[in-house]
Amino acid sequence: MSGAASQVQADLDRLLPLLDTSLTTPFRAGEAARLGEAMRYSLEAGGKRVRPILCLLAAEAVGGTVEQALPGALALEYVHTYSLIHDDLPAMDDDDLRRGRPTNHKVFGEGHAILAGDALLTEAFGVLASAELDPVRRAEALRLLAEGAGWRGMAGGQALDLEGETLATYDLDHLRLIHRLKTGALLRASLEIGAVLGGAAPAERAALRAYGEAIGLAFQIQDDILDATATDADLGKRAGKDAGRGKITYPSLLGLDGARKALSEATETALCHLATLPNRNSLAAWAHYLAQRAK
Amino acid sequence: MSGAASQVQADLDRLLPLLDTSLTTPFRAGEAARLGEAMRYSLEAGGKRVRPILCLLAAEAVGGTVEQALPGALALEYVHTYSLIHDDLPAMDDDDLRRGRPTNHKVFGEGHAILAGDALLTEAFGVLASAELDPVRRAEALRLLAEGAGWRGMAGGQALDLEGETLATYDLDHLRLIHRLKTGALLRASLEIGAVLGGAAPAERAALRAYGEAIGLAFQIQDDILDATATDADLGKRAGKDAGRGKITYPSLLGLDGARKALSEATETALCHLATLPNRNSLAAWAHYLAQRAK
Repeated sequence: MSGAASQVQADLDRLLPLLDTSLTTPFRAGEAARLGEAMRYSLEAGGKRVRPILCLLAAEAVGGTVEQALPGALALEYVHTYSLIHDDLPAMDDDDLRRGRPTNHKVFGEGHAILAGDALLTEAFGVLASAELDPVRRAEALRLLAEGAGWRGMAGGQALDLEGETLATYDLDHLRLIHRLKTGALLRASLEIGAVLGGAAPAERAALRAYGEAIGLAFQIQDDILDATATDADLGKRAGKDAGRGKITYPSLLGLDGARKALSEATETALCHLATLPNRNSLAAWAHYLAQRAK
Repeated sequence: MSGAASQVQADLDRLLPLLDTSLTTPFRAGEAARLGEAMRYSLEAGGKRVRPILCLLAAEAVGGTVEQALPGALALEYVHTYSLIHDDLPAMDDDDLRRGRPTNHKVFGEGHAILAGDALLTEAFGVLASAELDPVRRAEALRLLAEGAGWRGMAGGQALDLEGETLATYDLDHLRLIHRLKTGALLRASLEIGAVLGGAAPAERAALRAYGEAIGLAFQIQDDILDATATDADLGKRAGKDAGRGKITYPSLLGLDGARKALSEATETALCHLATLPNRNSLAAWAHYLAQRAK
């Protein structure tokens, strides 16, 4: 195992159990039991919890603690999970499979899937607003979360992506815009929220934001490469769906080699932005890991 | 015009123009233009802005100002508007008409309607988190908004309501639970958020919360009565849809006279809770108005 891979594994071993327990506990007992079940179903599908882990590591990178950043980390995973549930709906990407299991609406019906997403999005803000944190940092984290998730961020990117499916022409600038909003905005917010909750100095916060921007781009390029080269079984979801639908991707615009070069450049940029941070080893390892991941 | 009606009209004349302008201004220029258009379409459908106005009046009732409570008022209307867009979807109530106009998904398609709701819900928290308000009051308002809108509030109630359509038996307690969550939680939050942002003392805040609880019940009973007795043209939406679907309502459980009696009792309860507030005239007038409204 390379140094980066063993560092990532150590972070996962340390942080995943805490995240997995904390994420679903609030939705175990309540009057809307079936809705709670639908929310837990998608939260329990697992995955690597990239956004919450990056948030926690960003706090640690500036000398803060996991405890300080945990409400932000949970909020980010709630937002990410809601976005997957809604993106999988028939009116959006129409997917039956996610992380190797039937998608939320296949199990609970479309109405409950829409509501489970709505409730997770709401709970994201609720968990941050209820956290016993410095009130100024808490409000700033809430603002960043709304900015990353909303119409100038993730939701806006998903809308442009939906519209893109009907566009005849499509260039690299437009593709970059969509990804900066759809995937990049929430990844960037993950780092910046961690920075804020961990008590970053302004220059540290800006560096983590720029790192987040760069790994957001790398993450999306790798996603497109995997979609073009992997199988369903590799991914736990339908592979080749973008190409099959004539959707524009980095490999379709740049070729596979060109996309791999762009991925490597984005990763280098991310690493550069870490140079001045006191505890940068984990975030550096994650930048390598995200660019090399197999799903 | 009765005293209550003229007081309500004076409040509308004073507050509606401010609300109408403030609600849509943020979504005029942005990269996701079509999504912004979908968000504005439903915000511009108008209506009486009951929740934001109650929020502003609650702040004034305890000696606060419209300016202090405005971010909370906007947030409440964003949440309410998102809930209407999602409730109208084919997978939920499947309505083609809302406030006399085609529903959001009929104009923009289901994908954009889902995203417009998501983005409005996100923006609700964003506008509050970005507001220049006392940070402790702001965080408390955010917490109340999440509580009223989420799986223990409005979204949970909508899920139970969806499930109710398949239940063979259904009693008054279950109907009350659904309405307490689906309609009541956000109305109660409207009053309590206004109280918090307006600087209410604890007893004043509790009184406004109880007033909100009671008018929430009254509002729902009157909604059911109108659905059973009005025409499409009266309501600007499909009338009789609950009865037509065999859905349980206050009139179907209590008869029309019984429902009218319950409405009158809930309104009296609301008025009692106002007794100790310094500026209670507007909220008293609104309690009468909401119980007597024709749509």
